[in-house]
Amino acid sequence: MLAVVKKSHSAHRRPQDRRSRRRGTLRRGRTHGGTSTPARQPRAGWGPGPVPMWFIYNPRAMAIQFEIEVTCGGGRLGKLITPHAVVETPVFMPVGTLGSVKGVPQDLLEELGVQILLGNTYHLYLRPGVETVRGLGGLHGFMAWDRAILTDSGGFQVFSLNELRKVTEEGVTFRSHLDGSSHFFSPESSMEAQIGLGADITMAFDECTEFPADPKRTRTSMEMTLRWAERSKRYFEEHKNEVPWKTVSSFEFQVSSDGGDARNSKPETRNLDRTQSLFGIVQGGMDFELRRESALRTVEIGFPGYAIGGLSVGEPREVTREVVEATLEHLPADKPRYLMGVGTPEEIATYAGLGVDMMDCVLPTRAARHGLLFTSEGKVSIKQARYAADAGPLDPACGCRVCRRYSRAYLRHLFAANEVLAQVLNTVHNLSFYLDTMRRVRHSIRLGEGTRSPSGVSSQPKP
Amino acid sequence: MLAVVKKSHSAHRRPQDRRSRRRGTLRRGRTHGGTSTPARQPRAGWGPGPVPMWFIYNPRAMAIQFEIEVTCGGGRLGKLITPHAVVETPVFMPVGTLGSVKGVPQDLLEELGVQILLGNTYHLYLRPGVETVRGLGGLHGFMAWDRAILTDSGGFQVFSLNELRKVTEEGVTFRSHLDGSSHFFSPESSMEAQIGLGADITMAFDECTEFPADPKRTRTSMEMTLRWAERSKRYFEEHKNEVPWKTVSSFEFQVSSDGGDARNSKPETRNLDRTQSLFGIVQGGMDFELRRESALRTVEIGFPGYAIGGLSVGEPREVTREVVEATLEHLPADKPRYLMGVGTPEEIATYAGLGVDMMDCVLPTRAARHGLLFTSEGKVSIKQARYAADAGPLDPACGCRVCRRYSRAYLRHLFAANEVLAQVLNTVHNLSFYLDTMRRVRHSIRLGEGTRSPSGVSSQPKP
Repeated sequence: MLAVVKKSHSAHRRPQDRRSRRRGTLRRGRTHGGTSTPARQPRAGWGPGPVPMWFIYNPRAMAIQFEIEVTCGGGRLGKLITPHAVVETPVFMPVGTLGSVKGVPQDLLEELGVQILLGNTYHLYLRPGVETVRGLGGLHGFMAWDRAILTDSGGFQVFSLNELRKVTEEGVTFRSHLDGSSHFFSPESSMEAQIGLGADITMAFDECTEFPADPKRTRTSMEMTLRWAERSKRYFEEHKNEVPWKTVSSFEFQVSSDGGDARNSKPETRNLDRTQSLFGIVQGGMDFELRRESALRTVEIGFPGYAIGGLSVGEPREVTREVVEATLEHLPADKPRYLMGVGTPEEIATYAGLGVDMMDCVLPTRAARHGLLFTSEGKVSIKQARYAADAGPLDPACGCRVCRRYSRAYLRHLFAANEVLAQVLNTVHNLSFYLDTMRRVRHSIRLGEGTRSPSGVSSQPKP
Repeated sequence: MLAVVKKSHSAHRRPQDRRSRRRGTLRRGRTHGGTSTPARQPRAGWGPGPVPMWFIYNPRAMAIQFEIEVTCGGGRLGKLITPHAVVETPVFMPVGTLGSVKGVPQDLLEELGVQILLGNTYHLYLRPGVETVRGLGGLHGFMAWDRAILTDSGGFQVFSLNELRKVTEEGVTFRSHLDGSSHFFSPESSMEAQIGLGADITMAFDECTEFPADPKRTRTSMEMTLRWAERSKRYFEEHKNEVPWKTVSSFEFQVSSDGGDARNSKPETRNLDRTQSLFGIVQGGMDFELRRESALRTVEIGFPGYAIGGLSVGEPREVTREVVEATLEHLPADKPRYLMGVGTPEEIATYAGLGVDMMDCVLPTRAARHGLLFTSEGKVSIKQARYAADAGPLDPACGCRVCRRYSRAYLRHLFAANEVLAQVLNTVHNLSFYLDTMRRVRHSIRLGEGTRSPSGVSSQPKP
């Protein structure tokens, strides 16, 4: 997959122009340090026309594309063109573990501007089961979500949720956390599951190295992840055409008529002739050298995008950042870089500034369920008695449905009374805050302002 | 309060016309048996103009008005004009126990067309507490709901939720089900609480007679309810001007821009110069004579509306219907009649056909939380394995957001996986089904078709 250079960062390009430019332009994006610079002009002569030769010889052009529009410092404003949606990057992906972002209906997610969400293969494999989802057209059909989806490989949960597990070269035998039944995951079976789930982007089956781990253990783990990455890719390439969305969906669903970002809902931005994409994952613990080696060797195997795994596993936050910086250095600039499992609003802004294009984290949704709300004035623990009679909005600077309508007193009451609506409203707000944060980051890159934390964004508790 | 006779059952009368007609027309509605008949013409000469004398002498004209537009058999198509909203009757009122219809945000309720909902004084008194709600502008301000609200008196929960209670002439001493703390409810304190909560319609503090009860006990209980009704009314009349909405609301909230029935959201349909209304409650157990006596003596005390209480307490369903019919006979035709705590979709249609104008029940919301869903094909227990791969909509005849978008398989998965979204979506559908049922009932009355159960409405389990 090659990056496509845009003439300008116009947001109003018509979809058909975008497609012909994709076919017609081959320049690699060049980054200019420091200032916001539009990417270079496409070479003349590559306009709309017959399909160029490289396209015919490059089956990977059918899957995913990544276009960098503007760079600023390390940060990149880009577009990830997936089969189901065009995703603006840097992007934060809410986690919809079991095919649902807990408590938030899909039309509300659309309204919030969510362009891509994450599903957990481990959980969906256990219930409702991959075949059930496959039979309903994959996750998109199953959860009635027609924008982009990314699935993880199941590797992380298999390691983190299961004490009793047996790891061999073949794969991992583990027990379901639900009923203790025995299961086996391998690169091949993980790929099979992810193809059945039908996400736009799938992840290689890796071993998430525990923390802490000594250098020998880290190397051993990293090497196995590389062997598993090869096996993942091999199986994926052989079977990716079995993705369910290539068959007729058995249930036609209606997207809400005022469905958020209309560009992503319109048929012309979707291209289901495409297949899924598989991203590789870099491991190597907290060792810069191992990270470098893992990155280079994963790139050697070759994927359309690369994730940095094995972080946010208990290491100090400064170490996370150092490892991210050290790893990014060795990942190709023209491919999307996905940092898994981070972070706070400040952190996602920071990492975006370093050149991370995609992130996911349960923090906004999980914190919401515990009444911990991110606001422009700091973190609010809504259960506190101080809010019991507070008539003001949760976050005066937030334009989400929750802040425009409800008072802190009401939100506090809902949480204290254990009302389900508390979870719904808290989650809507936290997601809105995260998505707004990323929106501002993208805007800052566009304007050449870098990606320092937007003023007021803070994870510190409210004084 | 006098019923106002409309010239025609036009739905497009301008609010200012409606107000001047209200002032200018005094005819009692007359019902015509059997066929749908528009109510009589207003007397000539009572057009817009200076405020008529009767208006000055009748302070009750400030509170609530009930207009019967069409009658058909026993059923009446009407409008209940409350301070916050015009409510079309017969109406089903969803229950928002703790200031929230569990799991459903207020904008969704608006979209469903909910015009009036019910709050439970007992629960709100315990948390967050009446003073908290009062300070935030009453329940309307607190829960950011600008349509109509009805509160019950707390009498029912005090009797049903509390084993350890002591009843005297003064009132009821009981223990909080939350923390065992001791509390006291009386007609006066219940009125004080309901005034502080600021619902459009409040209920007299009554004793809900247990079932079964012998005639002596039933009479004793009924007599006390009558004495408590007098005390409720006395306190209410003295203090109703303390209703919070007469003070400036401290929190201005925004109703969603596509907020359902726009007529009810527009300022011109609201009149907050008005005070609350207090309805009386008829008791008398299952004894027709006692019911008659209770009805006549409650009417003698005089209220703008009357509820039939003390039913759905374990009696057989046929008995419920018989008691309702026997009681309605003795309630004035020109006042709204509210049957508390019923019922299934079939039942609410049936009672509407007998002449009941208002009903409330936790059934749609509670059943939803248990995965029991009402559909045009019968009751669906969504957790059943038979739905695990069912790609069809929950109810093919339903136009709600849930049925337009999600499959049975997905709803089944959400419920089986204990996802919060299950509760949200199930509740939205069940409420939609109930509200649709009432919509069809009103339409049937308008067309003179009576209120037989709309075809397909059934509470029987799906075969």
